Amino acid sequence: MIKLKQAIQTQGTVLSGDILKVDQFLNHGIDPELMAAIGKEFTRRFENDGITKILTIESSGIAPSVMTGLYLGCPVVFARKQKSAIHHKGLFAADVYSYTKKTTSTITVEADKISADDTVLIIDDFLANGQAALGLASIVQDAGARVAGIGIVIEKSFQPGRTLLDGAGLRVESLARIASLSDGTVRFSDEAACEVKV
Amino acid sequence: MIKLKQAIQTQGTVLSGDILKVDQFLNHGIDPELMAAIGKEFTRRFENDGITKILTIESSGIAPSVMTGLYLGCPVVFARKQKSAIHHKGLFAADVYSYTKKTTSTITVEADKISADDTVLIIDDFLANGQAALGLASIVQDAGARVAGIGIVIEKSFQPGRTLLDGAGLRVESLARIASLSDGTVRFSDEAACEVKV
Repeated sequence: MIKLKQAIQTQGTVLSGDILKVDQFLNHGIDPELMAAIGKEFTRRFENDGITKILTIESSGIAPSVMTGLYLGCPVVFARKQKSAIHHKGLFAADVYSYTKKTTSTITVEADKISADDTVLIIDDFLANGQAALGLASIVQDAGARVAGIGIVIEKSFQPGRTLLDGAGLRVESLARIASLSDGTVRFSDEAACEVKV
Repeated sequence: MIKLKQAIQTQGTVLSGDILKVDQFLNHGIDPELMAAIGKEFTRRFENDGITKILTIESSGIAPSVMTGLYLGCPVVFARKQKSAIHHKGLFAADVYSYTKKTTSTITVEADKISADDTVLIIDDFLANGQAALGLASIVQDAGARVAGIGIVIEKSFQPGRTLLDGAGLRVESLARIASLSDGTVRFSDEAACEVKV
């Protein structure tokens, strides 16, 4: 997705530890026009898959998900992220380990938000180690619903998440795939290297 | 705003303690079409005010803000909510007391996200005691920017927030104003009582 790659190139910042800071347009500052373009692109990729619901995770998944829901014509649910949550009958929950923060958090969705006849598109801002996406997929499965696919805004293809989700038989559609962030440079998987300010 | 009031009437639930649960369409489950209508209505009310930025707070403020940003043609910034944050030079911060949770959290915005020449529209999902809105306004003021107004999706007019913001000289535009939630019934400020399931 050219617009997204241009935003990563011109507004992204590569920090040490293979971190790509995109808080000018995706996860602190948000560019609504770019989110609309992302929503249209996810819609193009999933419009024939009978999606009845989008599931994402607070906070950075909300903006691209709501735009996708607008164009795809379906509601959105965002999982809540908590330090810990009491697992009970009225709540679907999954524990998600963050390799960046080295902590486990619990993501939860109230049981009335997903039903067994839903076909769910999972959307998230980043795919790195795949733990959040797997947690969301397990919540969909707990609800007896079907995962149609996983829509990712930015995939760090050099981290294990993509392989993990492919291995679980999940369809993954990423709008930008990054092969490497070495030397402060963003290299997309399918293009020549593009310099990004460090 | 009729569509919003209908959603509150048909999908809202009044809980004890004057709590209105709207997690079917606003703050857990999200109705993207309703969010688009909300975005258009905020745009109608603020389109001649020279807004250059929308400031909101994670997570429930993001959906209505991104839609407003799309139609108003300006970027969105969401303040992060933390249990506590180290106040430092690169960060605008405000402490916000929650009367519901009886805890103080710190909301933060990175300093490069708002500049002194910004004209800011603050958007939030609920107005009850006004503490979040005042915290956001103080962040705008710390940045040397101007608050053009505060856009609220649902105002609980029987709680002190509205009076507090009016008293601070802030323009408040609320899309639904609730006069009372007594007896499990939503009574809007400007209409006859509407029964809502308890």
